[in-house]
Amino acid sequence: MLRITIDNADPDPAYQQVYRQLRKAILGGELSPGSRLPSSRLAARESAIARVTIVRAYEQLIAEGFIESQVGAGTFVAAQLPKIEEPAQKAYHPVLTTWGQRVISINHTGERGADSTRPEIDFGFGRSFAEKFPYDIWRRLLGRYLSTDDAMLSRYGSAAGYYPLRQAVADYLIRARGVRCTPDDVVIVSGAQQAIDILSRLLLNPGDEVVVETPGYRDAFALFRLHQAKLVGLPVDNQGLPVDRIPKNCRARLVFATPSHQFPKGGTMPLARRLALLAWAREHEAVVIEDDYDGDLRYEGGSLAALEGLDEDGRVVYLGTFSKVLFPALRLGYLVLPRALAVPFVQAKELVDRGAPTLTQAAVADFLAEGHFERHLRHLRHLYGEKRAALAAALDEYLGGRVRYSPVAAGLHVMLYANTHLDEARLVRDAAARGVRVYAGAPYHLERPAPPSILLGFSGLNEDEIAEGVYRLAAAWPD
Amino acid sequence: MLRITIDNADPDPAYQQVYRQLRKAILGGELSPGSRLPSSRLAARESAIARVTIVRAYEQLIAEGFIESQVGAGTFVAAQLPKIEEPAQKAYHPVLTTWGQRVISINHTGERGADSTRPEIDFGFGRSFAEKFPYDIWRRLLGRYLSTDDAMLSRYGSAAGYYPLRQAVADYLIRARGVRCTPDDVVIVSGAQQAIDILSRLLLNPGDEVVVETPGYRDAFALFRLHQAKLVGLPVDNQGLPVDRIPKNCRARLVFATPSHQFPKGGTMPLARRLALLAWAREHEAVVIEDDYDGDLRYEGGSLAALEGLDEDGRVVYLGTFSKVLFPALRLGYLVLPRALAVPFVQAKELVDRGAPTLTQAAVADFLAEGHFERHLRHLRHLYGEKRAALAAALDEYLGGRVRYSPVAAGLHVMLYANTHLDEARLVRDAAARGVRVYAGAPYHLERPAPPSILLGFSGLNEDEIAEGVYRLAAAWPD
Repeated sequence: MLRITIDNADPDPAYQQVYRQLRKAILGGELSPGSRLPSSRLAARESAIARVTIVRAYEQLIAEGFIESQVGAGTFVAAQLPKIEEPAQKAYHPVLTTWGQRVISINHTGERGADSTRPEIDFGFGRSFAEKFPYDIWRRLLGRYLSTDDAMLSRYGSAAGYYPLRQAVADYLIRARGVRCTPDDVVIVSGAQQAIDILSRLLLNPGDEVVVETPGYRDAFALFRLHQAKLVGLPVDNQGLPVDRIPKNCRARLVFATPSHQFPKGGTMPLARRLALLAWAREHEAVVIEDDYDGDLRYEGGSLAALEGLDEDGRVVYLGTFSKVLFPALRLGYLVLPRALAVPFVQAKELVDRGAPTLTQAAVADFLAEGHFERHLRHLRHLYGEKRAALAAALDEYLGGRVRYSPVAAGLHVMLYANTHLDEARLVRDAAARGVRVYAGAPYHLERPAPPSILLGFSGLNEDEIAEGVYRLAAAWPD
Repeated sequence: MLRITIDNADPDPAYQQVYRQLRKAILGGELSPGSRLPSSRLAARESAIARVTIVRAYEQLIAEGFIESQVGAGTFVAAQLPKIEEPAQKAYHPVLTTWGQRVISINHTGERGADSTRPEIDFGFGRSFAEKFPYDIWRRLLGRYLSTDDAMLSRYGSAAGYYPLRQAVADYLIRARGVRCTPDDVVIVSGAQQAIDILSRLLLNPGDEVVVETPGYRDAFALFRLHQAKLVGLPVDNQGLPVDRIPKNCRARLVFATPSHQFPKGGTMPLARRLALLAWAREHEAVVIEDDYDGDLRYEGGSLAALEGLDEDGRVVYLGTFSKVLFPALRLGYLVLPRALAVPFVQAKELVDRGAPTLTQAAVADFLAEGHFERHLRHLRHLYGEKRAALAAALDEYLGGRVRYSPVAAGLHVMLYANTHLDEARLVRDAAARGVRVYAGAPYHLERPAPPSILLGFSGLNEDEIAEGVYRLAAAWPD
């Protein structure tokens, strides 16, 4: 007879322990198919376990088909139990689609700086200044919905986003960014990645050309490549995408641009060029994705009005994010879509992801509508402005003459271009040996060979760390 | 000279108002290209606006290229300003990819019951019992991370999910669901939709067959169709997917099944059939997606162990969700992936969506790890059990003899099959006229004609509403 024991230290209920032991014995062959099990009364007595515990375990085994109860005859291990096979020799290896194979080949997780050693000073890009975030306000706003409005939590939200948030975003964009939109044009997404992915699925056929800036947003490059697009990379000057250099025979139906603040080089696209870009798009029946990833965070003068505001025939898709001003871990971004694209976009989002978490959206809606967002933004502009000044001073002092870069008019990073030959990978290693993590510029460039360059994000560091980091970087920099 | 005015009631800063008026005048042609603007001093005097305000507006217009400052000569409307074109006659209409066209044709947003009239009694499926959610605990857990660990918020999280949550999920699944996994096998997603979408992108080539249950999960049908899969629908019996009826010539590489509790018909797949399914998958080099959408919410006996726990060669992908036990608006689900699929899945997720919100993940991790989840689950089982009993009693009393259905052994819904001919659409309309919203069963069935059926979700209603709703449904039901 099988020995069944109860371990009081085991967090599982007793009946679960009995169930597990019997299940294992059946699968392991100790209890063979068709064999009779003792009655629950007998098993209880022999193992000194409460009968109700045995009964519950039996019931579960019956429900799962391991054992069968025959009225008047007793309980038996299921007779038609197929022979349990040995752990398979041929373990499954997936045969990936070509899409899956491209995922693997594009993967750059490793490069993103995921290695385990944590540097003393990390010029990582895209971190927010979370220690200054108004947590008290945020907690209050979240709490508001946690007790009163459970109907909001208990249903699936709209795939397009929580309506009051779409309203608050529209109000903000009209006021601050010169975007022309209604709440119905705004769609909430998990971030720019999701927006670009869904837009690509809707608009890019394999082999289609996409006009992009180089240097540019590498994650957008990756997504367009994932959709088998052919990237037409235009080297930017200090006014962003040089529209007049788009090849005459270019048949792109999609342009990805950062007109407010070119990523990652810096520079702003002037009006004439913006209008030229829109004219080009109109002529070529193309869509322009305007990635306004840090248009909020402009240090001097107001933020520039968005390209979207100049678009007269609905071919600009505006992308924005809360990651920079609130925090990246929030995972909320938004789009303003031309009406003709909004319907398919929302239907696609509904199918592939349903929607963003309602509670967070409700809290962000109030954060915007009650003025906390713009207040925090002003605060951040000031704080980041000081970091920016510290960076400029350190670059001037320690690397003056060895690098050139566009003034940091906005945002949280700078792209340094070496004035002389530079082995990027070696510099990154040498800096790491001095406790400083900096980022090679090559992955952001489509030109080959890429101009030697280094990306520094400064938002995660304080002013002393910035100065010390640049000092150490300079020490690693070849003469 | 242009009249510039400041409206004190306008929430925008004064310089923005000046900027806007000048910008409009330039784009509208009132200020023509090359024309000279008054000096800031003069403009300030003439308009009775502070000079600093005018200067800031000018600066912004210069930055955007609307005007130019020529040292010693003054400020001019940009000369190379292209002629502003008339609002385009040919507004943009997107040319969608075939994927986008399938999105439009598959769309069933409308059917989901999005119409504006709110019925008195809504037998909507998939709502949670949010009023009983322990909000105090949830608030405390969220608050824990809102002040102390800002490093968590300020960085992008891992695409695979927040590690302590993956750990807590693994612990729970091993203990409660018989899944065999480590935290590394667990990936956090926004829900089952995202999981199925990414798996389809990784594994389904156009034209591939997919074995599904009918009736079944319509959103999975939609996603597989979006990937141009050919659905092989097997009519389920009261033991789930009839594995022995998979056509001999079926070449499916993917099976989508709900072995713990067949959706939406009910019934549990017994052991013999589970083992047969795994053997079939092994023989056909197929992957089985086990959607355990409500395996937690079983009313009698323990929850059944997952199919995944029987899988010896890593070809089962287990899907779970927090929507039913916590709340749908949370937008968090999880997968347990065979090791060989975990790497491409996480890399794909990183590219198309980055990751789930860290703060929410941290709170859910603690909710699980500290036992609140299982405590709440027991509470819910009790509460839903009472609703279930009310539903069974009402169906018996008012619709007995006219419908048949599997006992509600788990979950939050029942699929009623009419014993005689039934015009579903008409019944849904007639019930609506009586203030009751019920859902046609046809979209869940692949058989044509679909057996006449009605889906009732009971989680969003109290016991009186359930009784009253079934009473009114019966009144609408044709004899």
